Amino acid sequence: MKMIIFQELNVKTPKREILLNITGKINEIVRESTVKEGVCRLFVPHTTAGLTINENADPAVIKDVIMYLNKLIPQNSGFSHMEGNSDAHIKTTLTGSNLEVIIHNGMLALGTWQGIMFAEYDGPRHRKVYVQLQGE
Amino acid sequence: MKMIIFQELNVKTPKREILLNITGKINEIVRESTVKEGVCRLFVPHTTAGLTINENADPAVIKDVIMYLNKLIPQNSGFSHMEGNSDAHIKTTLTGSNLEVIIHNGMLALGTWQGIMFAEYDGPRHRKVYVQLQGE
Amino acid sequence: MKMIIFQELNVKTPKREILLNITGKINEIVRESTVKEGVCRLFVPHTTAGLTINENADPAVIKDVIMYLNKLIPQNSGFSHMEGNSDAHIKTTLTGSNLEVIIHNGMLALGTWQGIMFAEYDGPRHRKVYVQLQGE
Repeated sequence: MKMIIFQELNVKTPKREILLNITGKINEIVRESTVKEGVCRLFVPHTTAGLTINENADPAVIKDVIMYLNKLIPQNSGFSHMEGNSDAHIKTTLTGSNLEVIIHNGMLALGTWQGIMFAEYDGPRHRKVYVQLQGE
Repeated sequence: MKMIIFQELNVKTPKREILLNITGKINEIVRESTVKEGVCRLFVPHTTAGLTINENADPAVIKDVIMYLNKLIPQNSGFSHMEGNSDAHIKTTLTGSNLEVIIHNGMLALGTWQGIMFAEYDGPRHRKVYVQLQGE
Repeated sequence: MKMIIFQELNVKTPKREILLNITGKINEIVRESTVKEGVCRLFVPHTTAGLTINENADPAVIKDVIMYLNKLIPQNSGFSHMEGNSDAHIKTTLTGSNLEVIIHNGMLALGTWQGIMFAEYDGPRHRKVYVQLQGE
């Protein structure tokens, strides 16, 4: 049976910059639905945070990602925008605001080492992720 | 009723590098369709321009994004490609050529401050955006 | 007739860093299906490789992209992750793990100069790409 499900997920980020693993929460939404084949579409409705997929095993990896993004795009780089978070806007454009993960056999088709990460670049904040399942 | 709609959007970019807000035009296409739940899929069929989502309020933000991308990837960086626009190709890969925005309750599920931006990196040019709505 | 097709594609990458044109193989999958309107969803289930769209004509372009990503994110940049491939993880987050290409009139709606590139950042390896067609 074909279906489209829409849901909002609340995410609380603990610091200014972090990649937060939200795979468990997304898995739960997929499991509670009856979608067997289709897509899990994720979207962040903010302009200083995004979504990415990266390693869920060694926490050094996502620390390296955050550390190096800060090296490439330091917070104070002579920006015009007065709020002092232009670095976060740039990182958001480089990371992306949306993500589509295939659902196959009733599960997210992720690789063994992959986690879905909420990329916070201007926290700590209360954030939202829109989740849409489209399939059958 | 399930449906798939395909449409081409023409975009005229005024300078070499700019983030151009095309949200209004995309909104119009969604509004004119009868899709209530589904996706709006956007795709740029060029290799020196992309799509991103960023702030639609303070114009300083998108200027900072463009300024800083130029700082990270200057036009003349000892590239092999003879057309002199390798920087634009690199920016395109970092920004992305496609975007999926959720349609919920007949509207694009964008956050308050979010705009859909056509990212021109080698203008001014006449460009195209493919728009596909898939839903019901 | 509405349908969802799932398939795995094997990709063998010849060196540590390369953008490998896989458009031909994806085209074949689309052609062999009977999907006329819909989407071709691609997903890389690895954390040190991604997907991007860029020029398929002058090979200097994709060499410039790889060269410059290495300049921005050198392999040895004082990373914590002990495997020595944090640069590959960062490039993956910047490039993205997934791609959605519109299917229109039974074909991938790509621009003349666009190729779908498998972005290897930690090869040579045997890699997989998940391919899902959703449409009618």
